Amino acid sequence: MENGKIYVIGLGPGGRAQMTERAVRALEKCGCIAGYGLYLELIAGLIEGKERIETGMTREIDRCKAARDAALSGKTVALVSSGDAGVYGMAGPLLEVSAGYEIDIEIIPGITAACSGGALLGSPLTCDFACVSLSGLLTPWEVIERRLRGAAAGDFAIALYNPASKKRTDALPRACAILLETLPPETVCGLVRSIGREGESRALTTLGELAAQPCDMLTTVFIGNSATRVIDGWMVTPRGYRGV
Amino acid sequence: MENGKIYVIGLGPGGRAQMTERAVRALEKCGCIAGYGLYLELIAGLIEGKERIETGMTREIDRCKAARDAALSGKTVALVSSGDAGVYGMAGPLLEVSAGYEIDIEIIPGITAACSGGALLGSPLTCDFACVSLSGLLTPWEVIERRLRGAAAGDFAIALYNPASKKRTDALPRACAILLETLPPETVCGLVRSIGREGESRALTTLGELAAQPCDMLTTVFIGNSATRVIDGWMVTPRGYRGV
Repeated sequence: MENGKIYVIGLGPGGRAQMTERAVRALEKCGCIAGYGLYLELIAGLIEGKERIETGMTREIDRCKAARDAALSGKTVALVSSGDAGVYGMAGPLLEVSAGYEIDIEIIPGITAACSGGALLGSPLTCDFACVSLSGLLTPWEVIERRLRGAAAGDFAIALYNPASKKRTDALPRACAILLETLPPETVCGLVRSIGREGESRALTTLGELAAQPCDMLTTVFIGNSATRVIDGWMVTPRGYRGV
Repeated sequence: MENGKIYVIGLGPGGRAQMTERAVRALEKCGCIAGYGLYLELIAGLIEGKERIETGMTREIDRCKAARDAALSGKTVALVSSGDAGVYGMAGPLLEVSAGYEIDIEIIPGITAACSGGALLGSPLTCDFACVSLSGLLTPWEVIERRLRGAAAGDFAIALYNPASKKRTDALPRACAILLETLPPETVCGLVRSIGREGESRALTTLGELAAQPCDMLTTVFIGNSATRVIDGWMVTPRGYRGV
């Protein structure tokens, strides 16, 4: 029997309107859909009647192996991530667990939260920027700390993914304390929540006030660079570097 | 007369299939389209018969002002960027030139080259990453150098935008020399060209060999972090941090 194919698909932030046509067409080709239940709900209309491989939020490796094995049995499989498939997504782990197997893999990008959340706030990432996840589940805190220091040293605008979860409420305050060692407390910051979904919200603040903002696993946090400012309620990082 | 509205739209890397449904629908609402000629060609079928505001590649501020003035005259305007509207795109400059005017602005994100190029190579940006533009047109080289050093210090995977142009061929070799001060020459690197368009190509290399690779204004360069490796021809940054 010939092996099937796996499409690793980035869904973008919300439902169908935020997906590319390429992603929608790939989903249509697949008889078997693997993904976290919450994300599958967002695209329920597109995958009605298809076989589903669902696993819990933190069982990504199991999900990748199940997708790989389904492809090895000849199926055409969609492995879906919210946002982009490559940014804190399923493309990396799928390629790791598929090493040495002869499976046709196609990765279809989607809009990551740095871009979708940035658009809600204005243009916080106009120039050079860094994305850092504050989840310590897979990355030791020393590495996260090194990343934050490197981003601050480079005067990058920063998008913080996974700033908090139910169990993990101290990550954002710790990150703020590290950044405040070198960045001024008046640095412009923004938060977005539930991008492209029901209850979408946004807020502007400063680095000095950021640690006190309400924040959960659906929040993405933006920290401006030294030139970022607020214009008519938008968070804007200028394109050029004036006065440097 | 009431003011019109401006949609700032990220087109993603290529033609219609790489755009979101939201972006396509917004374009349909607009009678007037402002953008760089090359990008307008990619969406020619979607904007047939509409008024066009075209300016050269480096006349972005003029284009933003023309879009603003068209909206002030009551028109519904699309201001388009390739990739994402907020990453080296038109959202920032448009918000700057529209400061104080009462214009309804909606920013519609698109897939930036870090994501679309990453998907072609595999998953180079699975974990924390930084985007740095090597164009010195708007950013002094000292700032670019500071960003590169910060990214290397943080062990970020890096996506380099604008690594070269016809006139500017020394930027990538200079960037490589800076990174090689701290990163090993065997660091996994990748290049993608003309993502999602005719002549799309990809190549894998190492940081030690990167400066010698052919590279132009349509190229995006990826530099792995200390854990990035090649798996079955894909450039893969593992999700977790093993052995740190």
